[in-house]
Amino acid sequence: MRKNRCLYFPFQINEPMREELDKIRMQEALQLAQKGVGTTSPNPPVGAVIYAGDRLIGQGYHEKAGEAHAERRAIQDAIRRGNGGFLNGATLYVTLEPCSSRGKTPPCTEAILEAGIARVVYGMQDPDKRHRGRAKALLEAEGIHVCVGIEETACKAFLRPWVHSVETGLPWVTAKVACTLDGRLARKNERWISCTESLKFAHELRLQSDAILVGGATVRADNPALTIRTPFSDVPPCKQQPWRIVLTRDRTSLPNDIKLFTDSFSSRTIVYECVESLSEMLFKLHEGYGIVRLMLECGGSLLRHFLEQGLVQEWFQDIAPVISGGTSLVVPGDFLPRELHLREVMIQQAGVDYILRGIVDKFRS
Amino acid sequence: MRKNRCLYFPFQINEPMREELDKIRMQEALQLAQKGVGTTSPNPPVGAVIYAGDRLIGQGYHEKAGEAHAERRAIQDAIRRGNGGFLNGATLYVTLEPCSSRGKTPPCTEAILEAGIARVVYGMQDPDKRHRGRAKALLEAEGIHVCVGIEETACKAFLRPWVHSVETGLPWVTAKVACTLDGRLARKNERWISCTESLKFAHELRLQSDAILVGGATVRADNPALTIRTPFSDVPPCKQQPWRIVLTRDRTSLPNDIKLFTDSFSSRTIVYECVESLSEMLFKLHEGYGIVRLMLECGGSLLRHFLEQGLVQEWFQDIAPVISGGTSLVVPGDFLPRELHLREVMIQQAGVDYILRGIVDKFRS
Repeated sequence: MRKNRCLYFPFQINEPMREELDKIRMQEALQLAQKGVGTTSPNPPVGAVIYAGDRLIGQGYHEKAGEAHAERRAIQDAIRRGNGGFLNGATLYVTLEPCSSRGKTPPCTEAILEAGIARVVYGMQDPDKRHRGRAKALLEAEGIHVCVGIEETACKAFLRPWVHSVETGLPWVTAKVACTLDGRLARKNERWISCTESLKFAHELRLQSDAILVGGATVRADNPALTIRTPFSDVPPCKQQPWRIVLTRDRTSLPNDIKLFTDSFSSRTIVYECVESLSEMLFKLHEGYGIVRLMLECGGSLLRHFLEQGLVQEWFQDIAPVISGGTSLVVPGDFLPRELHLREVMIQQAGVDYILRGIVDKFRS
Repeated sequence: MRKNRCLYFPFQINEPMREELDKIRMQEALQLAQKGVGTTSPNPPVGAVIYAGDRLIGQGYHEKAGEAHAERRAIQDAIRRGNGGFLNGATLYVTLEPCSSRGKTPPCTEAILEAGIARVVYGMQDPDKRHRGRAKALLEAEGIHVCVGIEETACKAFLRPWVHSVETGLPWVTAKVACTLDGRLARKNERWISCTESLKFAHELRLQSDAILVGGATVRADNPALTIRTPFSDVPPCKQQPWRIVLTRDRTSLPNDIKLFTDSFSSRTIVYECVESLSEMLFKLHEGYGIVRLMLECGGSLLRHFLEQGLVQEWFQDIAPVISGGTSLVVPGDFLPRELHLREVMIQQAGVDYILRGIVDKFRS
C-alpha cells in the first residue's frame, strides 16, 4: 500500500535553508536522545522529532531495551497529541539509521511506512555492517525521501560508546579518578578528596553508566556502595542501579557484611575472582549483561592494568587544588608501555575542584 | 615654599563619580607597573600616571633599582611632553605609597611637592612599618589632598611577592612544574613534557623571576641553561638573565662543562653545597642578591623538601593531557606533614596543555 508522499514544507525554501532547518531539528532529536543515556543498554540512546512543515507534531526517545524505539514513540506521540492527520507527508528526524529488522520490537521502517512519513533524515548510519544502509534502500524503494548525515559528527560523538561496543564487542571504559595536583589519590585524614560539587558530578557519571568496576582492595578499604543516591543525585524511575563489579584475587577476602553484599541492590553485584584476561572479562560483561558503558572507580594498581592493556576509552579526572604527597593515582613504576594521550579535552569548574574530561586519542608506545 | 594647590577637575563631579575615575586611573598605573615585573628587585614594580583634569599629562614606571621611581618618571614625562605647566594642580596616581626617605634616589615626596601636584592617590601603604603612612602625613602637611586605598586589593595582589619579601626577609617562591595527568614528571623518550606554547609560558615566568633554583640531579640529567631565550621569549634590554641557583650535596659532582658554568651568563650561576637550612639559604639570597621572586624548576625530591618546610608561595602547573606512569611530580612517600592548598586558582589553555596557577592558601596539617 503506497501512500501519497507529498512533502510538507514550511514555505518555499532553497537547499541551504533546508539544510539549516534540518540541522536545527536534528539537534532537537539529539537533545531527546540524551535522556536515554544510561538506561537503554545494550541498545543505543536515540531521539526523534517529526515535523509537518514548520510544526513539531511529535517527538520521542528510546528509553529502555525491549520498549518502543524513538521513531515509534515519536509517531505515537503525534497521534496522542491529535496530530495523526499530519503524519502523512511529514518529515522524521532521527539521530541513528532506523532499524529495518525485527528485534524485540518490530522494525521502525515498517512504522515509518505505515504512518505515511514522506521524508526521513537521520544523523548516522548503523555501525553494524549487516544493517548499514538497509533503511535507506528500503525506504527509498517506497518513494520516501531519505537524507543521511545531518549533524553526523555530533551524532557519532554522542553514540561513540555504543558504536565502540558494537564494533569491538567490549564496553566503553571510562576511567573516573579524583586526585590532587600531584596526582595523589587521597588526602590525609579525609574520606573524600573531592568537594561536594565534584561528588555530584561523579554521581551524574554513574547515572550514565551501566556498570562500575572496583578492585577488592577498594572494597576492603572503603566499603563503597557504588550506587547513585541522594543527596548527590536522584535516580529516574526507568534507571536501574548500575552493576557493581568487583575484581579480586580471593573472594573470601571480601567481608560478608559489606554494602555490596547486603544492601537492597545486592543482586546487582558481580564478583570476578582471579581474572586472567581483562578484555575477556569485559567481553563477557558486554555479551552477558549488555553493559555498554563501564566506569572504573578502582585504585591505582588496577587502573595501571587497564592502562597497560589499552582498555580505557575515556578519562574523567577531578582535580583538587591540593598537593598532598600521598598515594599515587597510577601506582609508581616504569613508564606505561603505551602512553595514553587525550583529545577533545574539556575542563570545567566544580566548586573548588576542576574536572577534566578527554577521549583517549591513542596509546603511544 | 608652599604653592597654590588648586585642583583640576574635568567637570563638576560628585564623590561616587570621582571614585570611579580614580579607580580607572589607578588601573592604568597598575598596567604600567606590570612592565617593571622582573627587573626592579629588590625594589617593587610601581606605576604612576598624572592627570590634569581629564587629561593624561604624564606617566611612568620604575624600571630598575637605582634609577628613578615611577613618580619622578611620570613628572619627567609630563615635562618632556611639554605638559610641565599643567603639573601645578594636577593629580598623581601611584600604585604604592610614595617613598619619603632618601635611598639610592631622593624621596618622591620631595619631587611631588616641587612639581606642585595638588592631589595624590595611592593604591596601598608601604608594608615597611618604618615608612607606612609617612607620605600621607608629610604631603597633607603641605596642603596636598591624599587619598589612600583606591584599587587596594588589586595593588596588593600585584605586589604580593615584594610585600612577602619585605615582611619575611625571604624571596617569594614559585614552584613551576610540568607534569602529566597522573602527576608524572616525564614522558617516555621525550625531552619536554610540555607543548611549545607551554614552553613559551615557562619563559614568561622566567622573565618575571630574579632567580631559578634547581637541584644537582636536574643539572646532571638535563644540563639546562635556565635562561630566557629565543624562540620562546625575548629579553628586554633592562632585564638581566635570572640568577641560576644549584643545590648539591657535592660540588664536584657537577661536570665542569655544563652550560651553567660555561655559557656567557656563567657569572649568574650560584652553587650551594650541603645546604642545611633552606630558609636560611633563601634569606641569604634575598639579603645578598636582592632576590624577590625565586622560581623552583627542580625535581620531585627537592620540591618535596620545599613543600615539607612550607616554603612555597605560588604554584604553576603545566598539565599535559597524557597519562605516562613514570616518575612522580612529588617523590612518593608519606603524606606531606602539611598539605598545600591553593586559592585564587586559574586555569588557562596553552596549546594542548593546561596551565593551572594558584596562590598557596595555607599548609594544613
